[in-house]
Amino acid sequence: MALTLEALARTLGGRLDGPTPGPVVTGIASIAEAGPDQITFLTEVKQVGRHLDELKASRAAAVIAAEKAGPLPLPSIRFLSAYEGLLAALAYFHPEPPLRSGFHPTAFVDEDAMVDPTAMIGPLAVIEAGAVIGPRARIDAQVFVGRGARVGAGVHLYPQVVLREGCCVGDDSIIHSGAVIGSDGFGFHSTAAGHAKIPQVGVVEIGARVEIGANVTIDRATMGRTTVGDGTKIDNLVHLAHNVQVGKDCLIVAQVGISGSTILEDRVTLAGQVGTVGHVRVGQGTTVAARGVVTEDVPPGQLVSGFPLKPHSEEKRIMMALRKLPDLLRTVRRLEEELAQVKKNA
Amino acid sequence: MALTLEALARTLGGRLDGPTPGPVVTGIASIAEAGPDQITFLTEVKQVGRHLDELKASRAAAVIAAEKAGPLPLPSIRFLSAYEGLLAALAYFHPEPPLRSGFHPTAFVDEDAMVDPTAMIGPLAVIEAGAVIGPRARIDAQVFVGRGARVGAGVHLYPQVVLREGCCVGDDSIIHSGAVIGSDGFGFHSTAAGHAKIPQVGVVEIGARVEIGANVTIDRATMGRTTVGDGTKIDNLVHLAHNVQVGKDCLIVAQVGISGSTILEDRVTLAGQVGTVGHVRVGQGTTVAARGVVTEDVPPGQLVSGFPLKPHSEEKRIMMALRKLPDLLRTVRRLEEELAQVKKNA
Amino acid sequence: MALTLEALARTLGGRLDGPTPGPVVTGIASIAEAGPDQITFLTEVKQVGRHLDELKASRAAAVIAAEKAGPLPLPSIRFLSAYEGLLAALAYFHPEPPLRSGFHPTAFVDEDAMVDPTAMIGPLAVIEAGAVIGPRARIDAQVFVGRGARVGAGVHLYPQVVLREGCCVGDDSIIHSGAVIGSDGFGFHSTAAGHAKIPQVGVVEIGARVEIGANVTIDRATMGRTTVGDGTKIDNLVHLAHNVQVGKDCLIVAQVGISGSTILEDRVTLAGQVGTVGHVRVGQGTTVAARGVVTEDVPPGQLVSGFPLKPHSEEKRIMMALRKLPDLLRTVRRLEEELAQVKKNA
Repeated sequence: MALTLEALARTLGGRLDGPTPGPVVTGIASIAEAGPDQITFLTEVKQVGRHLDELKASRAAAVIAAEKAGPLPLPSIRFLSAYEGLLAALAYFHPEPPLRSGFHPTAFVDEDAMVDPTAMIGPLAVIEAGAVIGPRARIDAQVFVGRGARVGAGVHLYPQVVLREGCCVGDDSIIHSGAVIGSDGFGFHSTAAGHAKIPQVGVVEIGARVEIGANVTIDRATMGRTTVGDGTKIDNLVHLAHNVQVGKDCLIVAQVGISGSTILEDRVTLAGQVGTVGHVRVGQGTTVAARGVVTEDVPPGQLVSGFPLKPHSEEKRIMMALRKLPDLLRTVRRLEEELAQVKKNA
Repeated sequence: MALTLEALARTLGGRLDGPTPGPVVTGIASIAEAGPDQITFLTEVKQVGRHLDELKASRAAAVIAAEKAGPLPLPSIRFLSAYEGLLAALAYFHPEPPLRSGFHPTAFVDEDAMVDPTAMIGPLAVIEAGAVIGPRARIDAQVFVGRGARVGAGVHLYPQVVLREGCCVGDDSIIHSGAVIGSDGFGFHSTAAGHAKIPQVGVVEIGARVEIGANVTIDRATMGRTTVGDGTKIDNLVHLAHNVQVGKDCLIVAQVGISGSTILEDRVTLAGQVGTVGHVRVGQGTTVAARGVVTEDVPPGQLVSGFPLKPHSEEKRIMMALRKLPDLLRTVRRLEEELAQVKKNA
Repeated sequence: MALTLEALARTLGGRLDGPTPGPVVTGIASIAEAGPDQITFLTEVKQVGRHLDELKASRAAAVIAAEKAGPLPLPSIRFLSAYEGLLAALAYFHPEPPLRSGFHPTAFVDEDAMVDPTAMIGPLAVIEAGAVIGPRARIDAQVFVGRGARVGAGVHLYPQVVLREGCCVGDDSIIHSGAVIGSDGFGFHSTAAGHAKIPQVGVVEIGARVEIGANVTIDRATMGRTTVGDGTKIDNLVHLAHNVQVGKDCLIVAQVGISGSTILEDRVTLAGQVGTVGHVRVGQGTTVAARGVVTEDVPPGQLVSGFPLKPHSEEKRIMMALRKLPDLLRTVRRLEEELAQVKKNA
């Protein structure tokens, strides 16, 4: 993985803007950390101005940039989109380790489980009866896959994932360590005698190309299915309650909590620490800003925030007005006095 | 598990309101998802109106409903409480799998642990010395039970629960995957030299019929005990700090954080993402609405919310008033000008 | 561990203020829970007044207190700082169990891992190839240490910690159960076609004497390092995103979420449930009060709170003013009417 800039540009499919063949490079790093044998990257065209001083000070051999990023103070490898180049460079310098298929001798795989011969089962993993593990799936150390659970092709379950009985994960999805898929929903029938458990007999269905962060919890449905649509990405420590339906290509940032039976349509974004009440629907393409609480249905295409939820611009106006509130109280007190004086004098 | 409606009603202890013997049914599902060989349910009498159109469109063979739910557009099986019928139907169609007692050969059970012969120890579980596992307890795969920990009769620890040394769980409690019971409290003595750890030498005591969600953390006491009372139910990703005392039959919803030495009396409800400061007491039967922060003691029987905590009705009034704040600022500015003009003209 | 008060005072290095040799004591407990064969403690001088009634009612044989705590209603063992005495007493009555070095026969340690002979590897732990485990490290049951990860001297990884490949933990650090160190950062390149994963090829570096709570998640850097400085203490269920840099001796309380590339300088305190947006810097010694959201850079030495972030005193003033807002709306409405009347009469 050591190439001249010229050879690297050719390998990655970019255009070298700088002297050929250029120095030999062996890796990629951030603008500040890259050394003379590394390249760096500038992913957003609008960042050029902001990062110009950093780029001038960088020791990097070259920078991956967009064709339209304009002149840069060091050699560059240009792509239509800088991200295209970044992804190509990361794939080149940090290739996925090859999958070593087969069962680790310390894993426990029930004889009634069906594991594709091209899948890998890591040390001390548990695959229970009736579970199905697809081709090229990578089941890391100490993972638990329950009875009748299904894992699609190319799925990667990181160490200590729990996939409970009957739940399934679509092709090429990634689940990070400590995530629990299919825990019981929080459902009780409360009377004066206490809270009687309502058995949670549904499942969780995760689509294809989904990514689920570390220590996420997704509860199985009371009946039926809790679902996460294809292409959706979920950050760490997120909670999805029973019967939640998440659409395709949603982004759910860390520590979000989604209450029972909530529906997110496609391409919804929930920023960090957002909460939702139960049984609401968030329309396609809507974004809820950080810490917002979804208290009612939201139409598609909105940018909303606050608690209760409002258009983001209104929430910001209120937040600014709030800083004037203590003064306002004083002003009104003064107005009352002045007006009383005016009336007395009239 | 295939019965005519008539036979099913008899089995569940309900009254069939519809033609006998009715079709053969094999399962239960939601109003929208039930097919012609399934029954559905309507748990709240007040929902009848809201769900009437759905019920008319349902393909279900019959609906479980309360006697007093009034006329319904399809056959029904009536109970005094619809929940009673729902729980009976779930128990009938989804019976708990029988417990296979004994140690899985891959589990590690210390020879100085005491495991009841009717208990089940799953694959790759660890039971350390001095631990006691009660009758009919179900210890799933990859669970950790530390030295001297005690697990009561009929307890179910789901895969990858951690029960640290010396902690105990009362009869018939359920702990979901990834929950950590007995981690050290966050206690330090801070000086200019840094933060010296205060050893956390207490334990956690979980009562009977408690349910604890996935990836919950409950810290052991600095000294003495962190306690969770009988019948309390805790949702996913909740944090209980050291020396917290939770009463009986409380409900603690997802992502709540309870600071050290807080006391919840019996039947307290904390809704989602609530926080408490340390050393406060929440009175019996009080409910804290979602996202509230308990900043001081709360008397029994209250409905409170907000940060700082207020009566819920006051918090709602403030939230509504807030939306008028930007306009109010403008109004007061205008009043100031008008009054100045009046005074000038006087 | 049974000593007279006189002998105990000598052993702990304190001064007995009471009759000698005093009763035999065997343990330490809180003021309310201590019995006649136990001592108790009073750690804050300012607490003396608050706890005087409790102390009078205590059954404890003696109380650990500061020299300057003044007269107390029971025998006492005095220290310059009461904490010094408390830590000595805890170490005496609750000594750390001795480390049993060596591999548990059920652990899987790759032959290419380097484990110091004085380290302990617990049951069913996994140590992958290239990992390095330092002297006296304690790796508990079911821990996962990935390829090339490094664990310093005297480190304690509690059951079911996940330390992913290439990450490292400095000497004498403690990581609690369920914590995940080195999960992928939440980084995607989003286009109309969906969210393309940006490989996260960096690592996490944890300093020395760090403590990390249960079910914490710390993401590896996109490139380079996510870092946690020496002496920092992190509570349960905290989330640190990719490329975060936490300084030395910080305190991060439960359920805090820190977004990508945020920098905390040394001795920062983030109270419970705080959030930060990405790419901000919090200055040395600053404290963010509970539930605050860091929306921009904060200078050193501040006490801040709220969302958006403000000086804590301003936030409190606003919170107090808020409770008067509904009244204020009514007052202004009345002023408008009165002023209209005045103008009409003029």
